Amino acid sequence: MSSLLNDLVAALSSGQLRVIDLTQPLEPSTPVIELPPMFAPSPGFSIEQISRYDEAGPGWYWNTIQLGEHTGTHFDAPVHWVTGKDLPNNPCDTIPPAHFVGPACVIDVCTQCTENSDYLLTVDDLLSWEAEHGRVPSGAWLLLRTGWAERTDPKEFFNVDENGAHTPGFDQATSLLLATERDVLGVGVETVGTDAGQAGTFNPAFPNHATMHGHGKYGLTSLCHLDQLPPTGAVLIAAPLKIVDGSGSPVRVLAIVEG
Amino acid sequence: MSSLLNDLVAALSSGQLRVIDLTQPLEPSTPVIELPPMFAPSPGFSIEQISRYDEAGPGWYWNTIQLGEHTGTHFDAPVHWVTGKDLPNNPCDTIPPAHFVGPACVIDVCTQCTENSDYLLTVDDLLSWEAEHGRVPSGAWLLLRTGWAERTDPKEFFNVDENGAHTPGFDQATSLLLATERDVLGVGVETVGTDAGQAGTFNPAFPNHATMHGHGKYGLTSLCHLDQLPPTGAVLIAAPLKIVDGSGSPVRVLAIVEG
Repeated sequence: MSSLLNDLVAALSSGQLRVIDLTQPLEPSTPVIELPPMFAPSPGFSIEQISRYDEAGPGWYWNTIQLGEHTGTHFDAPVHWVTGKDLPNNPCDTIPPAHFVGPACVIDVCTQCTENSDYLLTVDDLLSWEAEHGRVPSGAWLLLRTGWAERTDPKEFFNVDENGAHTPGFDQATSLLLATERDVLGVGVETVGTDAGQAGTFNPAFPNHATMHGHGKYGLTSLCHLDQLPPTGAVLIAAPLKIVDGSGSPVRVLAIVEG
Repeated sequence: MSSLLNDLVAALSSGQLRVIDLTQPLEPSTPVIELPPMFAPSPGFSIEQISRYDEAGPGWYWNTIQLGEHTGTHFDAPVHWVTGKDLPNNPCDTIPPAHFVGPACVIDVCTQCTENSDYLLTVDDLLSWEAEHGRVPSGAWLLLRTGWAERTDPKEFFNVDENGAHTPGFDQATSLLLATERDVLGVGVETVGTDAGQAGTFNPAFPNHATMHGHGKYGLTSLCHLDQLPPTGAVLIAAPLKIVDGSGSPVRVLAIVEG
């Protein structure tokens, strides 16, 4: 046995390492992205009981679930976006499993987002973070901490006015730098999608999706508990369901951190 | 940063450690357990396209999915069984996240199962395995390698005759020893359920479910690639979707092993 895996098990058991759940609960009230009415909507979560220790199943309880692949805390595969459609190995069932475990870098822009709900992470923000914490390593997740996970009131979470949703995201130059020069696994956010609320009006539209998925990178949304992660040093586990030709998947996202 | 987590990331990156996918593909043909007709059935997997770079969504592709919580490679929570219904913290959304990462012990009974499709793992089998590989540690998964994952023909996988399904499982005394004296996380199998095919006729019926879940233990089914795991030393990652009051969940099961 690898002594490293032995040590990992021992450290988890002793509490020297802890597992943090970064996942929002999946239930009928789980928020889902709302698109303009000319586009087909993706459904939220619904659940129907099959049996619960009753005539339909005396010894067992179980349910049927229905949801969009991109409902709740979920994983975006490159094929989700037209820019990624011809890349190899990119639906949920063919992504290399090694990509489901990787280091996490957490950039906290809560202050900026409190002042400006439409805040976009800039290249300068990223370079300043790197000056303090070191270069974002190849194969890392870049997680954007905005404070949105604390917005438990759906009205505040979606933050919609007559011009649409106002939620933070990424400047396209930042997405491009992360995808190409840093070669990240992808980006993760607390909001309902990896683009800003206003990104449908940007040119190009939804630039983070277009850029990241066009470079074979992934997305994670509706994360929570990012405040429990250090800026560097956590290991993220995010493994989508093995949906054949799946464009994404609801996912349980975990982080292993020092205890 | 913990040097252990640093070392883990470096070892995964260098290939010293590898991530193995133990999950069967999730698609409409994915096998699901079949119950006698007096009980309500659990549905298989269905998928419906919402848009694919077309009028319904010019830039994006996504689907709606519907399935039973216990369809395909999945996680059984204690509340799935009547014996576990009153235990604390046992639906999918309240299980401690630390339980989603743990060591794996793999017992290979392929030879016995080739001779007898109804083979049940005995206490003697377990003690013999322990004499060679050491005691099953507290908090480990016990994975049963039967060769069933290689049965790609549904007829051979279900192996049904006029008396029902003939697939291997656990002797109740073995389940009880694993749950109590060994305090495992749970058991994982290659078949469609953690009980033998004939277990509906046993007394009590479905003794592995009744015993394991009654002691707060979990189940994993429809695993594959167990032949790529060592008898001890792998670390298993199995994190169900965070379904509120969920009795189980489809899951992507990964193992980290020496490269």
